[in-house]
Amino acid sequence: MQLGLVGLGRMGGNMRARLREAGHEVVGYSRNLDAADVQTLAEMVDRLPAPRVVWLMVPLEAVEPTIDELAERLSDGDLVIDGGNSHYTDDQPRAARLAQHGIGYLDAGVSGGVWGRQNGYALMVGGSAEDVARAQPIFDALKPPGEFGFVHAGPVGAGHYAKMVHNGIEYGMMHAYAEGYELLEAAEVIDNVPGVIQSWRSGTVIRSWLLDLFTAALGEDPELAKLRGYAEDTGEGRWTVDEAIRLAVPLNVITAALFARFTSRQEDSPQMKAVAALRSQFGGHAVREE
Amino acid sequence: MQLGLVGLGRMGGNMRARLREAGHEVVGYSRNLDAADVQTLAEMVDRLPAPRVVWLMVPLEAVEPTIDELAERLSDGDLVIDGGNSHYTDDQPRAARLAQHGIGYLDAGVSGGVWGRQNGYALMVGGSAEDVARAQPIFDALKPPGEFGFVHAGPVGAGHYAKMVHNGIEYGMMHAYAEGYELLEAAEVIDNVPGVIQSWRSGTVIRSWLLDLFTAALGEDPELAKLRGYAEDTGEGRWTVDEAIRLAVPLNVITAALFARFTSRQEDSPQMKAVAALRSQFGGHAVREE
Repeated sequence: MQLGLVGLGRMGGNMRARLREAGHEVVGYSRNLDAADVQTLAEMVDRLPAPRVVWLMVPLEAVEPTIDELAERLSDGDLVIDGGNSHYTDDQPRAARLAQHGIGYLDAGVSGGVWGRQNGYALMVGGSAEDVARAQPIFDALKPPGEFGFVHAGPVGAGHYAKMVHNGIEYGMMHAYAEGYELLEAAEVIDNVPGVIQSWRSGTVIRSWLLDLFTAALGEDPELAKLRGYAEDTGEGRWTVDEAIRLAVPLNVITAALFARFTSRQEDSPQMKAVAALRSQFGGHAVREE
Repeated sequence: MQLGLVGLGRMGGNMRARLREAGHEVVGYSRNLDAADVQTLAEMVDRLPAPRVVWLMVPLEAVEPTIDELAERLSDGDLVIDGGNSHYTDDQPRAARLAQHGIGYLDAGVSGGVWGRQNGYALMVGGSAEDVARAQPIFDALKPPGEFGFVHAGPVGAGHYAKMVHNGIEYGMMHAYAEGYELLEAAEVIDNVPGVIQSWRSGTVIRSWLLDLFTAALGEDPELAKLRGYAEDTGEGRWTVDEAIRLAVPLNVITAALFARFTSRQEDSPQMKAVAALRSQFGGHAVREE
């Protein structure tokens, strides 16, 4: 089928390639015109036969302005899909805004990163069954082959919610491996830390795709000597913890992983200055001065 | 080659079967004589040609007495392998005790559980290169096919250490999935929790064997309605946290997962009684009485 694709960065560009390989006709637009098939959003809309389907794969801050413009340019019966990492509470207001013009809306959480073009993208979708059915050929082309990698998770918002939780779990899993790695490195008795971790790829309870990637990283740099112990976060871990707080769900592991990232980004630790100050006050314990 | 195997429970029995399928000659002994090939440990030793290799796959409390008996019955040049979940600090003393009789010792952490007979057992081994080389045909038969699933991790103790850390990581990973599951169950917008989790098996960053198993569990009981939220631990999570404390390695995620198991096993929570009592004292907040 035909699809308009807004955003041709690392994700969108690869998705266009995967869709074209599957025989779909993609009209791509991006602010970087080198990658684009059309010069403007208006031209993209003109090139698509109604009823149109337009997939957004743009940075978070660009989603709302793009939806505003599409609300004006698209027509009754068209469909917009946001494949970015939007917060799920933004989805219902967008759907309502587009619905005033008769335009449908789906939210699609997309996982797969740079490997998606080759392996397929896992898709978690929220919206009406009717809208999901209309876009199903696109989903089928993007998803990995086989029975998994796609779910209609619920109404509008459910796709981004499921993707948010996926990313929260990712934080916890990554950190579990990371803690095990640090403990192995500290242990006097282990001679071959990369070898231990690589061996876990088969037959163990903890084998996973993340473990495969970790082995690849250790293959390039066995002591991770080229890296600083510093990790950013892109917001979805925070959203997961926010949701846990809203719903009073204990989320100790995922929260600990998120907080460890915050700690990693501090030049110095105000809270540990406070601990040092208090130990000095009551016990005369030595402090380290700046 | 020929091997004595002490312990023919769920793990040992399946390992005997896998070894025999690979063409090795296994003389199995266990306290449950129904499964045993010989009636006594002495008979097992007699049936094996020197130099002998004897693999222990017995419960933790049976390891030391079995090693004591083997120290008397085996001869100079024989080799003992402990495949159980021993604490790594027990390995060096055992090796020293057996060395007085000229008997070698290897510790082997074994992962794979009930799936090991079919998929192979991941093996993490500690000991001398010479002893490892002698037992390599056994390791090769037990491990999964392919390049992974076996590591010589270091000297005596390193195998059990690596297995301990493997299990600690397992606690953290399981709990990350579990927290995500509970959050999805609590979320108003998600219609299809088992469908979301199943969809993650392909194309996502968090795909893993544990996720496959979790999907299987949800397939049998989509709301886990037949289970109580109660989890035992078999000690290796505690040992992992003990090691983190000894080595001053921050292990927040794995510790949180372990502590969540402790909480799950309490009928009531003394610490939450204390919190309730204090809230009542300073703020007159309502308490729930027994």
